[in-house]
Amino acid sequence: MKLYPKDRRALLEAAMGRRPCDLAVENVRFVNVFTGEIYPAVVYVLDGFVAYVEEGGRADPALAHQVVDGQGAYLTPGFVDPHIHIESTMLTPRAFAAAVVPHGTTTVVTDPHEIANVLGEQAVVYMHDAAEDLPMRQLVDIPSCVPAVPGLENSGAEFDAGTVHRLAKLPRVTGLAEVMDFLAVAQGEQRMLDMLDAAQQEGLYVQGHVPVSDKRLLSAYAIGGPTTCHETREGEDAVSKLRLGLRIDARESSIAKDVEKIYSQVRRLRYLDRVSLCTDDREAHDILENGHMDNALRKAVACGMDGVDALRCATLHPALESGLSNLGAVAPGYAADFLLLEDLKDFRVRAVYYGGRLVARDGVLTQEITPKTFALEQMDTMRVPPLKREDFDIAAPVEQGVVKVNVLHFAELEKSNTTRCVEEIPVRDGKLDLSQQPDLCYVKIVNRHGKGTVCSGVTRGFGLKEGAFASTVSHDSHNLCVVYRDADSAYEACRALVACRGGMCCAMPGQQTVTLPLPVAGLMSTLPCGELARQVGEMKQALRRAGMPQSNPLVRIVTMALPVIPEAKYTDLGLVDVYAKKVLPLFPEA
Amino acid sequence: MKLYPKDRRALLEAAMGRRPCDLAVENVRFVNVFTGEIYPAVVYVLDGFVAYVEEGGRADPALAHQVVDGQGAYLTPGFVDPHIHIESTMLTPRAFAAAVVPHGTTTVVTDPHEIANVLGEQAVVYMHDAAEDLPMRQLVDIPSCVPAVPGLENSGAEFDAGTVHRLAKLPRVTGLAEVMDFLAVAQGEQRMLDMLDAAQQEGLYVQGHVPVSDKRLLSAYAIGGPTTCHETREGEDAVSKLRLGLRIDARESSIAKDVEKIYSQVRRLRYLDRVSLCTDDREAHDILENGHMDNALRKAVACGMDGVDALRCATLHPALESGLSNLGAVAPGYAADFLLLEDLKDFRVRAVYYGGRLVARDGVLTQEITPKTFALEQMDTMRVPPLKREDFDIAAPVEQGVVKVNVLHFAELEKSNTTRCVEEIPVRDGKLDLSQQPDLCYVKIVNRHGKGTVCSGVTRGFGLKEGAFASTVSHDSHNLCVVYRDADSAYEACRALVACRGGMCCAMPGQQTVTLPLPVAGLMSTLPCGELARQVGEMKQALRRAGMPQSNPLVRIVTMALPVIPEAKYTDLGLVDVYAKKVLPLFPEA
Repeated sequence: MKLYPKDRRALLEAAMGRRPCDLAVENVRFVNVFTGEIYPAVVYVLDGFVAYVEEGGRADPALAHQVVDGQGAYLTPGFVDPHIHIESTMLTPRAFAAAVVPHGTTTVVTDPHEIANVLGEQAVVYMHDAAEDLPMRQLVDIPSCVPAVPGLENSGAEFDAGTVHRLAKLPRVTGLAEVMDFLAVAQGEQRMLDMLDAAQQEGLYVQGHVPVSDKRLLSAYAIGGPTTCHETREGEDAVSKLRLGLRIDARESSIAKDVEKIYSQVRRLRYLDRVSLCTDDREAHDILENGHMDNALRKAVACGMDGVDALRCATLHPALESGLSNLGAVAPGYAADFLLLEDLKDFRVRAVYYGGRLVARDGVLTQEITPKTFALEQMDTMRVPPLKREDFDIAAPVEQGVVKVNVLHFAELEKSNTTRCVEEIPVRDGKLDLSQQPDLCYVKIVNRHGKGTVCSGVTRGFGLKEGAFASTVSHDSHNLCVVYRDADSAYEACRALVACRGGMCCAMPGQQTVTLPLPVAGLMSTLPCGELARQVGEMKQALRRAGMPQSNPLVRIVTMALPVIPEAKYTDLGLVDVYAKKVLPLFPEA
Repeated sequence: MKLYPKDRRALLEAAMGRRPCDLAVENVRFVNVFTGEIYPAVVYVLDGFVAYVEEGGRADPALAHQVVDGQGAYLTPGFVDPHIHIESTMLTPRAFAAAVVPHGTTTVVTDPHEIANVLGEQAVVYMHDAAEDLPMRQLVDIPSCVPAVPGLENSGAEFDAGTVHRLAKLPRVTGLAEVMDFLAVAQGEQRMLDMLDAAQQEGLYVQGHVPVSDKRLLSAYAIGGPTTCHETREGEDAVSKLRLGLRIDARESSIAKDVEKIYSQVRRLRYLDRVSLCTDDREAHDILENGHMDNALRKAVACGMDGVDALRCATLHPALESGLSNLGAVAPGYAADFLLLEDLKDFRVRAVYYGGRLVARDGVLTQEITPKTFALEQMDTMRVPPLKREDFDIAAPVEQGVVKVNVLHFAELEKSNTTRCVEEIPVRDGKLDLSQQPDLCYVKIVNRHGKGTVCSGVTRGFGLKEGAFASTVSHDSHNLCVVYRDADSAYEACRALVACRGGMCCAMPGQQTVTLPLPVAGLMSTLPCGELARQVGEMKQALRRAGMPQSNPLVRIVTMALPVIPEAKYTDLGLVDVYAKKVLPLFPEA
């Protein structure tokens, strides 16, 4: 993708010094990410693009309508995040922009994978259109895995090669988003090959996602077409992937902190030109308190990475890997997205220029983001059957006694990995009775895309001690998922979510129900970052009162129905054996 | 451009170790150009592509039909030359392949600019098709400047945006070739913008050529679209270009030796990932005696460049700059073009594998290149008017005495730069008479594309002391150019060239005429490299006998009619003032 100025000849004339520019920023320490040099320079901008970078300290006032004194700050490209799901912040694209722009992010490449699973192609169009007229650039990769695992879950849409061809027509689409189904790639499944071919035909790069160490599997995946990967849990895997020519996005998300372990291994390599930083998933409070790409940069430098190397990993490298030919650097013909930074260690952002306009200074937006409303934000996506209190009982194949049940077992407090084990569960009046088993919870996954499917289950080690925790954020199909100790609370929590068009809810007997409304597709709030972070904090407190001991209790439920995380998961179709790719009955002997 | 195997699934299966490969090369020191590491490895190849690179020393014989022992050699990617004019070697594409493959070149990106100026689009198709079934890959960039300077010369064709769209359909076309008319780019001339837009629409990269130091002009050029440059005469200019994000091809041609001066400046930069090596123009004897990209590599390392850095500049970097996504490295999914090298200093090539087949060993091709004939090679491109002895007299506006003449002046022995100066020349019987002026020569430029235009002139400092030197190699329009001390010799030389369909000829009174026939478009021989080199050597000897003192006397005539080299040049339209872009009369006062 290449960005063009409205009037190319005017930019050429400005470069030649034959017409004045809109802006000159002088008296800066210019960081050239191509050469690694830092030198005094003046950056001239016309119509949103860099026209000329003059070596030296002061601007020629005859050649710029406005001259800004950079006061000796480092002038660097704006930060480019090559992989983020905006939905994970629970902010709308516009609220997300307001939150990250003051931190120096001028471009993100988003994978609107979550909302696409709920609302299909129109959701990708929404995410694309909602990014109009922002003080930043939100580019869109077309979700590749909708649903994540076909046949094992009912999501709200199915994407194929035709989808890729249609969505590639949107002007700010640049790639095919993280191809998570690495087995389908390595095994050459036709539907996947067709999508990869469609991407190639449309000139899109293919973003990868391959959290494995097996070098043969990695090799087959690389042959298949993806060129990047942000799922590197062990540093040594980063080296394996770089050896294959894959580009590595070292992730610093709210959950996965990969930068340190990746850098500890790749630092010994001669070349780091295929390493980038990314954030993948960031919570609202994390952005507020710690920042966005600036936080990842601080982490990289704290690990020992050189400041200019790190800067390259957050600017030029992510632009290159995403096929963006005039972003990620400050040079003639490039978009005039740049920052004035205090230093190259803490990356404190004094000022953010986007398209040559000052959009933030000292952590505060300097121009309001025009509010816009979209029909999609008003849609009710809670397409569930009418719910009754009795729906939350789980019927057993016997009337009394005990029955063997396939139980989903969380072995570790923080990790999402689960196993399946068979346990004997008491039955009372034909229903499972967990009242004497404090470490077990009931589970219901209710399809919310009008399919009518519902799955019942039991889980051990989830953490909830009383009440119910319900969520419509439930990767990747985002069905209504509720984990509970009593059916009344479950009914109450689900009812509350239906009423507010989705979100998260914690209900406990005798206590005020706490709801986090996420009315946009059941995934995103319409609040700004600060207010949302407060609501999320209240939800976490409610869950702690309900007994959940995890550092972030929200993570538990949102990955419980994601049938790509080993070894077992629930979906609306039942208990899934992830490796065998099949659905198991709740009662193994029934 | 991405290359695909015939059977993608088979390659995936081979990567997974589920089917045997055609070939495994074991016991090598594998040079990973992505990471810069060197480690023992086995390279598995199926159907021309790398399936898997296994770390360790020995192959699994169950997984390869053939196992080759690399005997501890360095295994590296085949060399990629990102910019060469095959016509400059005077070899056909097939003879060129035979010459360079033993030197380790497995891919070249050619600009068939010379032959396109003679025969137009069909010539590009010829160069493309003549590269079929070779033991190397010859990719084609579409010539962008045919003719070099419209309006100042008559060449055999005119290319425009439509040409780009048509030729982009050829499967091995990858870019728009060196955009030499940098002023047209910087000034936004419509015809040039249209061609650049056409390239962008067709997904072609744009190769540059901008031999200037002015930073504003360089900036405007970079805004215009070209992303590379191989015309860097001063090392400091390389730094200026890299700062703009341009990719630099450090050239080691038979004439221009730029590697040392470029490296002397860029070595201080933190990043060299935008530096490549290229050869641009190489003579047959130079390839025979000194090699091709291996020669450029030796030069780079002799200048102090690290061997692995240099290797990257001759493999991965040129592939990236040319938009070749699976060439220039040895990794799963990449074309199996690799070398076994003695070392990373002299780059002695033990073996060359192209598409997984051994094609050369110890400097000798191991498989014959199938001869092919093409109708274009038989075409007579000498479309000149019938020539008579009298045509070589130059009529003066007076009958006797002296006359003022615009003379083209070569100030330096080796350089092609020229000035114009007015001199008083004797006239006898109405014709210019240089007989008493040993440092002057007559000049005729005869259009050979059927246009009928002829220009007469006088030159000082050319070097010829007696006889005539005629050539149909005469950049870029390749008209018939003859420089002479007497009209009889000129007539004889031109007659000989018409008879042999073009080439070079040296005729001297009372001596045997020496001819170098170049029957393919008047530019290329049909002989193999060794025989051609011998003929070229004989031509140089003949020119030395005729008095020419230059180290390479051929260079003088072939750049004499190139109206982009300052300050003055002859074309078939007359004496051109290069900066003013206008044609001047021979007699300034007539």
